[in-house]
Amino acid sequence: MARKRKLARGVAVVGGGLTKLGLFKDRNCKDFFAEAYTEMVNSVDKGIDPKDIDAVYVGNFTNDFFVKQSHWAPIIADLLGNVPKPVTRTEGACASSALAFREGVLAIASGMYDIVLVGGFEQMSKCSTEEVAEGLAMAASPYEVAAGFTFPGVFGTMATAYFAKYGATREALFNVTIKSHNNAPLNPKAQFPMTVRDFMNARIERSKKKAEPVPAWKDEKAYLADPAANPPVAWPMHLFDCCPISDGAACMLLVAEDMARNFTDVPIHVAGLGQGSGYSLHAKKDLTSYEATRAAGNAAYEMSGLTPNDIQFSEVHDCFSIAELVTMEDLGFVKPGQAHRAVADGMTRLDGPRPINTSGGLKSKGHPVGATGVAQLYEVWTQLRGQAGNRQVPNPNLRIGAAHNLGGTGGTCTFTILERR
Amino acid sequence: MARKRKLARGVAVVGGGLTKLGLFKDRNCKDFFAEAYTEMVNSVDKGIDPKDIDAVYVGNFTNDFFVKQSHWAPIIADLLGNVPKPVTRTEGACASSALAFREGVLAIASGMYDIVLVGGFEQMSKCSTEEVAEGLAMAASPYEVAAGFTFPGVFGTMATAYFAKYGATREALFNVTIKSHNNAPLNPKAQFPMTVRDFMNARIERSKKKAEPVPAWKDEKAYLADPAANPPVAWPMHLFDCCPISDGAACMLLVAEDMARNFTDVPIHVAGLGQGSGYSLHAKKDLTSYEATRAAGNAAYEMSGLTPNDIQFSEVHDCFSIAELVTMEDLGFVKPGQAHRAVADGMTRLDGPRPINTSGGLKSKGHPVGATGVAQLYEVWTQLRGQAGNRQVPNPNLRIGAAHNLGGTGGTCTFTILERR
Repeated sequence: MARKRKLARGVAVVGGGLTKLGLFKDRNCKDFFAEAYTEMVNSVDKGIDPKDIDAVYVGNFTNDFFVKQSHWAPIIADLLGNVPKPVTRTEGACASSALAFREGVLAIASGMYDIVLVGGFEQMSKCSTEEVAEGLAMAASPYEVAAGFTFPGVFGTMATAYFAKYGATREALFNVTIKSHNNAPLNPKAQFPMTVRDFMNARIERSKKKAEPVPAWKDEKAYLADPAANPPVAWPMHLFDCCPISDGAACMLLVAEDMARNFTDVPIHVAGLGQGSGYSLHAKKDLTSYEATRAAGNAAYEMSGLTPNDIQFSEVHDCFSIAELVTMEDLGFVKPGQAHRAVADGMTRLDGPRPINTSGGLKSKGHPVGATGVAQLYEVWTQLRGQAGNRQVPNPNLRIGAAHNLGGTGGTCTFTILERR
Repeated sequence: MARKRKLARGVAVVGGGLTKLGLFKDRNCKDFFAEAYTEMVNSVDKGIDPKDIDAVYVGNFTNDFFVKQSHWAPIIADLLGNVPKPVTRTEGACASSALAFREGVLAIASGMYDIVLVGGFEQMSKCSTEEVAEGLAMAASPYEVAAGFTFPGVFGTMATAYFAKYGATREALFNVTIKSHNNAPLNPKAQFPMTVRDFMNARIERSKKKAEPVPAWKDEKAYLADPAANPPVAWPMHLFDCCPISDGAACMLLVAEDMARNFTDVPIHVAGLGQGSGYSLHAKKDLTSYEATRAAGNAAYEMSGLTPNDIQFSEVHDCFSIAELVTMEDLGFVKPGQAHRAVADGMTRLDGPRPINTSGGLKSKGHPVGATGVAQLYEVWTQLRGQAGNRQVPNPNLRIGAAHNLGGTGGTCTFTILERR
């Protein structure tokens, strides 16, 4: 089955919207989606009449569990004034809305529709932290949960395997965290618009105010190495290795390529679409790689005719810091075992040769699970249009970016390449 | 937006499988899906190498709630030996797997894939009846539940509106139930392979054995009219108006039309695909019609170039008996207000001019919600291939059938027309 995947009709992104991410107990998913949708409508350079939207795809992980309401498709249809047009929900745990994006692309490519809205949303703040952990555990494989694993435990296991195999240490994780947090203050949507140094200084100020002994951390790495500042969750995953619980929504407007210029002079084209599935931890041949990511990467590269070296920048699913390192290797950005060195050398910094998570990543921007896939693509789209403000990648020839979205403990993965032509 | 919807590439069904439906507490969704999948593999006339399946779409309503496990895509991928190929879950309440079917069709039509497995599954028997009611309530609109409505309550309200508007009585519902139950004993997969007369006779036998007074019902209608035999749930919905709680799975193999003859000499083609969304009860203009069904019907008729009169037989979403009547009208099989007369006249009987629910329908065959959409299409496919055994529609020129799948209280609807060419 080595047939080259080619869409019957090209698809372009012509609009996007993303809420501010954070914890908003007094609001709900309809509020979030309306906020993202309103930004999307205003973002379309030449305007969009919402009546022209043919269909909607939305990703959500488990509102069934988090807010005790399922079947959100008609709720979204009603919210947007879209009844009786088709609305479809996709679910792939934390990759739920990247699947919605993908189905929207395929629906246009199939000839069925011309203009499709895709998006995602999640509200995690209505539950207690314990309930969120219980809900998220349903995204893991049933074998993992039965064996006593939590999400930080699964990723911690991958990290120890990575350390053992490649001689890396926790410093490799610190570098990922410091780098991503450096981008967050430049992103007005970020849940934690603070660098690690900001956190450190805030902690010092607090100690001073309380007339406690003031810790003397010489730099951010010393701060992250101090368990009093960065306590362990599931070794070697400490607090600053783990993304937060978040609320939010994101959406994007997709149109057939042949009509994209009716909406904007700067359409961003869908160049590659990849999706893969993966094994439960116990069945993996290699704890330092995701077969789902490799499959998604290969499919997207094959479809686009591009190679890993063509990807100028990317958003990568850093639910835990180790995931960013493993993903860089699985996607071929660097050779296996080299990611920790590449990050230390500054390759993935905003001003480095291959920036990763310019948005701040899941760690600093936030991770409303059902919204994340489209939120990542929103960042890539924004960067490719040169509209990322203070966090704009400083490359005047920015043309190709990609987003990698991982569901569960690696059970579902998407890799989507966008291109400015 | 009056553009005619046309797929860039045609799609055909070349295989199918359906479990026996019922309550199977000692088994699970993996067991069910494996059973349906095995039948599907064996059903492909010229054989299928499972390795050639490019992607999988599965519908499920709320395993999050019913069995406390979400993110079933990688579980299914692993079950089928399909890792790392893409598997995507769709959710549209009771229309979840019709959405999976639809996305499978679009994925092939888009040029992305050639061979796609679609299916659905649900296990409802692990919960108490109260928990199932709570889970299903999450498929209703949040306004309906907040107003105190249950599912039988919503459909009961539609029935009273229908009665008031068209002068029908509960006898119209009896006719639907008796007709569907007449087909069930002819379907080896049915959860209740019994006619209403069988239920009546069993009740008489039980009374005799217990030496109780033996009820003297003159016929099935008298039996259904007796609240001792058919107690009210939410008037005018009585027990025999409501489909059961069920477990089960269904799947079908879709391939690009241009390669269908490699798999069978009798491919069944996807002629029309329609999907719509609908309002919550309080916002409906008319309680005797579903805007989602009308939109889905119109879209499928437009795409196929067919009219309601071309649909020789159909599976219709009879979660409650009244739904079958309203749907017949919304799909244009009869004029508004005429369905109750048409059913009384025998139009929808197995040997009538336009058979409906030859499988026994949700009422008698069973309704494992996430499996139902594909289970309905499986029946249509089986009939069009002339393989429905004792329940085969007695028409030697059977060529066009359709399946109507409704999610929630009408929030999502699909209408899919299959054709033997």
